[in-house]
Amino acid sequence: MPARLKIGKLVVIGVGLIGGSFALALRRARVVKRIAGVGRTRRNLADALKLKVIDEASREPARAVRDADLVLLATPVGQMPAVMMAIAPHLPAHAVVTDAGSTKGDVIACARRFLGGRFARFVPAHPIAGTEKSGATAAVPELFRGRNVILTPQPETAASATRLVQRAWESCGARVTRLDAQEHDAILAAVSHLPHVIAFALVGMLARRRNPGRLFGLSAGGLRDTARIAGSSPEMWADICVANRDALLAALEDYENALEEMRAAIEQSDATALRGMFEQARGAREKWLVKKQDRADGIED
Amino acid sequence: MPARLKIGKLVVIGVGLIGGSFALALRRARVVKRIAGVGRTRRNLADALKLKVIDEASREPARAVRDADLVLLATPVGQMPAVMMAIAPHLPAHAVVTDAGSTKGDVIACARRFLGGRFARFVPAHPIAGTEKSGATAAVPELFRGRNVILTPQPETAASATRLVQRAWESCGARVTRLDAQEHDAILAAVSHLPHVIAFALVGMLARRRNPGRLFGLSAGGLRDTARIAGSSPEMWADICVANRDALLAALEDYENALEEMRAAIEQSDATALRGMFEQARGAREKWLVKKQDRADGIED
Repeated sequence: MPARLKIGKLVVIGVGLIGGSFALALRRARVVKRIAGVGRTRRNLADALKLKVIDEASREPARAVRDADLVLLATPVGQMPAVMMAIAPHLPAHAVVTDAGSTKGDVIACARRFLGGRFARFVPAHPIAGTEKSGATAAVPELFRGRNVILTPQPETAASATRLVQRAWESCGARVTRLDAQEHDAILAAVSHLPHVIAFALVGMLARRRNPGRLFGLSAGGLRDTARIAGSSPEMWADICVANRDALLAALEDYENALEEMRAAIEQSDATALRGMFEQARGAREKWLVKKQDRADGIED
Repeated sequence: MPARLKIGKLVVIGVGLIGGSFALALRRARVVKRIAGVGRTRRNLADALKLKVIDEASREPARAVRDADLVLLATPVGQMPAVMMAIAPHLPAHAVVTDAGSTKGDVIACARRFLGGRFARFVPAHPIAGTEKSGATAAVPELFRGRNVILTPQPETAASATRLVQRAWESCGARVTRLDAQEHDAILAAVSHLPHVIAFALVGMLARRRNPGRLFGLSAGGLRDTARIAGSSPEMWADICVANRDALLAALEDYENALEEMRAAIEQSDATALRGMFEQARGAREKWLVKKQDRADGIED
């Protein structure tokens, strides 16, 4: 049995739902001694201090990481270059850096460029969890319990760094899987980024129809569920779509082909063909999603 | 104030979730004296009798309607021609017939053809309610409370017949709206039939990708919600798609255009354009769906 995980100082850059929940979960697991939070707004840092999500607050990442053992980058992906540039010269040699970004290829390219000599101790990661809420006040220690966290270590990544990050996430109750970064991006494009684009496109198209008030007024649960993720942050999702462009375009093409097959069957009034396609989809949902759904109630991506 | 609604004998043809709930709601409102149920399977009729959804059961629609005051056709749309043909010669002159089909243009055409001289006492209707369950055991008297019921009376429809059906649905707690049949079909194509096609297409496409188990295993709440209606009945939805073909194809075309705009922006890595489109969709959801959602929790279409 390996020695118990011990982290001296954890620095969370971006103390929002994800960063804050990671801090709370590690504190509850008693594997971390001290937690520093770095953020852009005083208000959110004050909330994080008050709620004991963090022990100390700072608005300067460079200073905060000077004596860090583990650094979690939990900012929006667009801020990563600036943050990495700022912290790289100040990281202790043993410090491990990880992130929580929804796309991995672009974050890895960014780290390779801006972390320079520290790249071998950077462990790219993606916790697949979240709710529609945000900010330190939304953080809860059980957010990652039973959730998947994907690590996409690179050939240069030190095995000891990957092990540390894996054990930290396991301390949060997460199931840790390692994946090729490109495969991660292809899968997430299909199961997460594409459904978001679909929801935004559907709701946007309905809003442009004649008399949208009446239209939405006569909708029911089907539309409500499909439209839920159209309530997600436009900034964050525009960034994700651009960051994961190629994989998303490939998934979109597959989807448009599936839609075209259905359109052709509708045009030909071919109920038998439609029924066959619908049955295949229903069977797949039954087989792969329904059990998972029972497990995942209440948590969204 | 109009005289209290009184229905002597109600005949429900198709004692499933919708037909059974209509019977239970009218019984609870004490506006109906006797309820006969007509169905294809002995088992479901026995359940309906046992649960006091109906007072008498029959497998012969022609005989059941002989002394009917109100007849609800709550079978799948595909069975309507045969049922209408069977009952038309046996309906008392005063009897009112209504239906609960998801599409109206095709049901009206069918009634015009098969009800013949009785067409003026046929009131086309669509209660927008349901759950994923089916059969008489799923029936509940409160299913229609606060739900929309659309009536699409035709020029020939007797005003007294429309009034009776309207008051019956109001007795169930529903909000009754009258709409042009073509407009009904266009709206439902957009807010209900299209989202179902989208869900079937998305789940079907994911199922055909490499390693679907891993793919679905790494999905989260976004996909789960979009995929829920891909669990709907393939037979029923194939019929609806064909019955409402033209309106559905028009909605599908609008949607594919919206998707193409997003695809173009992704191809050009135009985060600003994407953000604008996503914001428009989020705003529409907020304005037209979120309040409705609070009202509608737990009921699906």
